[in-house]
Amino acid sequence: MNGAQALLRTLAGCGMELCFANPGTSEMHFVAALDAVPDLRGVLCLFEGVATGAADGYGRMTGRPAAALLHLGPGLANGLANLHNARRANTPLLAIVGDHASYHKRFDAPLESDVDAMAGAMSAWVRRPARPADVGADAAEAVAAAMTPPGRIATLILPADVSWTDGAEPAPPADVRPSAPVADEVIAAAAAALRSGEPCVILLGGVALRQAGLEAASRLSVATSARLLGETFPARHERGAGRPPVERLAYLSEFAAAQLAGTRHLILAGARPPVSFFAYPGQPSTPVPAGCRVSVLAEAGDDVVGALAALAGLVAPDARAVPQQAARPALPDGDLTAQSAAAVIGALLPEAAIVCDEANTSGLWLPGATAGAPPHDWLTLTGGAIGQGLPLATGAAMACPGRRVLALEADGSAMYTISALWTHAREQLDVTTVIFSNRRYAILSMELDRVGAGAAGEAARSLLDLSRPGIDFTALATGMGVPASRATTAAELAAQLGRALAEPGPHLIEAIVPPPF
Amino acid sequence: MNGAQALLRTLAGCGMELCFANPGTSEMHFVAALDAVPDLRGVLCLFEGVATGAADGYGRMTGRPAAALLHLGPGLANGLANLHNARRANTPLLAIVGDHASYHKRFDAPLESDVDAMAGAMSAWVRRPARPADVGADAAEAVAAAMTPPGRIATLILPADVSWTDGAEPAPPADVRPSAPVADEVIAAAAAALRSGEPCVILLGGVALRQAGLEAASRLSVATSARLLGETFPARHERGAGRPPVERLAYLSEFAAAQLAGTRHLILAGARPPVSFFAYPGQPSTPVPAGCRVSVLAEAGDDVVGALAALAGLVAPDARAVPQQAARPALPDGDLTAQSAAAVIGALLPEAAIVCDEANTSGLWLPGATAGAPPHDWLTLTGGAIGQGLPLATGAAMACPGRRVLALEADGSAMYTISALWTHAREQLDVTTVIFSNRRYAILSMELDRVGAGAAGEAARSLLDLSRPGIDFTALATGMGVPASRATTAAELAAQLGRALAEPGPHLIEAIVPPPF
Repeated sequence: MNGAQALLRTLAGCGMELCFANPGTSEMHFVAALDAVPDLRGVLCLFEGVATGAADGYGRMTGRPAAALLHLGPGLANGLANLHNARRANTPLLAIVGDHASYHKRFDAPLESDVDAMAGAMSAWVRRPARPADVGADAAEAVAAAMTPPGRIATLILPADVSWTDGAEPAPPADVRPSAPVADEVIAAAAAALRSGEPCVILLGGVALRQAGLEAASRLSVATSARLLGETFPARHERGAGRPPVERLAYLSEFAAAQLAGTRHLILAGARPPVSFFAYPGQPSTPVPAGCRVSVLAEAGDDVVGALAALAGLVAPDARAVPQQAARPALPDGDLTAQSAAAVIGALLPEAAIVCDEANTSGLWLPGATAGAPPHDWLTLTGGAIGQGLPLATGAAMACPGRRVLALEADGSAMYTISALWTHAREQLDVTTVIFSNRRYAILSMELDRVGAGAAGEAARSLLDLSRPGIDFTALATGMGVPASRATTAAELAAQLGRALAEPGPHLIEAIVPPPF
Repeated sequence: MNGAQALLRTLAGCGMELCFANPGTSEMHFVAALDAVPDLRGVLCLFEGVATGAADGYGRMTGRPAAALLHLGPGLANGLANLHNARRANTPLLAIVGDHASYHKRFDAPLESDVDAMAGAMSAWVRRPARPADVGADAAEAVAAAMTPPGRIATLILPADVSWTDGAEPAPPADVRPSAPVADEVIAAAAAALRSGEPCVILLGGVALRQAGLEAASRLSVATSARLLGETFPARHERGAGRPPVERLAYLSEFAAAQLAGTRHLILAGARPPVSFFAYPGQPSTPVPAGCRVSVLAEAGDDVVGALAALAGLVAPDARAVPQQAARPALPDGDLTAQSAAAVIGALLPEAAIVCDEANTSGLWLPGATAGAPPHDWLTLTGGAIGQGLPLATGAAMACPGRRVLALEADGSAMYTISALWTHAREQLDVTTVIFSNRRYAILSMELDRVGAGAAGEAARSLLDLSRPGIDFTALATGMGVPASRATTAAELAAQLGRALAEPGPHLIEAIVPPPF
């Protein structure tokens, strides 16, 4: 058995089922071995950033890694931005990078580059099996590394000769380290803070934003008047009617500072300490107020939900979680704006929908408009590297057949990885994409002012402009096999979205909206 | 003056004129400063790989660097694949990566990543100015580093606070190290080889494939019967009627080995030692025959043309270069194939055209069909990282207004950086794109067999297939503002290409061709 065959069998034996692939010559033995391992399916993506973003979406929804198969250093490079987002999402993900045959590297062939340096920039674990006999064990360890709580990027660099040479055997799954229990004294300290009578905020992140964590947190809030906040960009937030609601910490640091004003105890449950997304001249790097004590109840890799439940057992033994009441906006009429589009989405969002939110500035009204919609998952741009939404939707849809995926996309962001639409069509995924087409990098128009860069001139403004020429997203979608339509009024969006959500397979709706500011 | 302003003024003072940009918040002061420095123009690209590929095209055609403005680590990551190609092309290129404010980095904000590791993987020179007072000198040194023969990638990482803080001043241009003269004894040794009577091949690369180098080489060939070959993937090959012709070393190593069979002296003039593009089981890594002595007349950073001229002065003082005779194929009729498409292109290629060749397997017949066309430049996929052609055409067109650019694109490769078409439209560039649409990764179908991966099954073949769904490139082009048409016969391609080349502005022609094998 050659290395490629042993690798695939090991991954399948570890329960992996999907490999999002954009292969090249050095991966041909891996590709050839796929037919012998039907449990692991290859899914073709036309760009590596689609493959890594899809693996992120799959990992967020299943808690298990998908593989992204990448070709040498440049293929890895193309996948790095969405690996960055996956790393920030704590997604379990296995990147497999084919490399030149080990003896060939010293010849510095045209595609040779420093794969290891690039892999290290985005991976928690990197290994390069040196011989076929190592592949099985290294692959099993790679999966275990990816599964290490809360989830990690593991990168396996597979030299072509290790792939094609016989002498390999599959390895059984390796042990996965469980999440670390939180010590009683840490829970007691949090309880003391909550009982202090001083203003407390519990900042929830990671798995704390799923049902069980939200319920424990809600009980804490009911019993102690601690306020709950969710991290700004969660990997996966379970929300909607029947689930305890949590407002997210604002993206803009001055708004986040207002949310945290007066807080004396900030208790982190699976969330990292708040930080301004960017630095601004004369502004602090963190919105945490002076005099506020920040303490860690549980880090993302700890047993976050267990810690919240234990804490609730101490300070809120009799409290009951308060669920979000069902409520939907009325279907709006009139102009199509980011605000009325949010109302349409809130009015029509199907139960168990998975929302991949890369709407950026156009998404400002979405949380409010969808808060009382039927229960759903909300996946966000965790690492800030745009071009995530359409690939993420690909992987989420493949992870959850039968559930509707709604990709909410800013126009500028959509163009980074637009070829994901082709995979939506090829796999006939139930993904409905809404493009918020405001024909500018609206967030940069705002940031240009916020950084104090002064009154921008024509040359500066032109770098934020997407109107010359305007992009026809319906043409792009149909060109890649995705049925598409354009909405210019709220009623048109409602009709088109309703129809798309009722039909199987992918759709794209280009929503023509003015910039929000 | 803040750091951004000093940076822009320094670059303009060094003669730089274009910045291909996909900026973000950390680059807003750079963007804002553009209006004050009109000599340096920002050109918006919708993806960083377009920006770096365009800077490569500009650098190849001018010998001077353009800037690529990238946003933090993920923006750099998206640009790395085409930086890799530029590095292999020895293109002078300045990457400017905005980073978080220096004091903000320790907070590990969502977009934080190891910028320096990724920059180092593709750059010959990396610097991060620590304070505004350093920016001017660092920028001047960056330009000089990029201009160091034969041309290099220099990356300047600009922290946001260094960008926005006052206390900077522009710096004058720094000295650029000239190319190194080749020692007389090296030239004498090459002369001895050429006079030995044993079979000699001179392998030309880099600037040796421009007019002056080709003429000297041709004289050597006439006087000594040495054979000339060009490197497999030149950055810029000046060819066509009136210029000495040079056949390129084949991509497939067994063909390259046949070209080199019997050679006793392989003399490298600006080219690197031949190496197989990939390794194959049981095959050697280099096509150079046993017993062949490989010697370096001039490395790429040496005075390659001077060395060839001096050598010609020694061994071919009276010889005259033999130019290619003008000859064009007849316009074909009948089926559209990669072969008949090549004939159409050879028949219609305008004088002084710049061809950006990423046609891959469909390009097999292009060199022969265009050999006797009017003089033109041929730019190739130097580093093997696909997704280069459309961005390269962007930069070449901006470098050479008044010249026609022809982007010859494989369908699979085109999808990597398809948004370059939008910049073609925005800048109304005289770029005609021909997509060879064979609806598969044809090169991988070939490589799957060549690597000995066995009879591929359905799962393997599906990862090489682009037919489900077929991509409508005319829809993609018109959706981004580029007029487009589809050709299904040789006559249609001829009519459409003739029309496109006669009109100003960009065009795209989707040429439906069968796979070549």
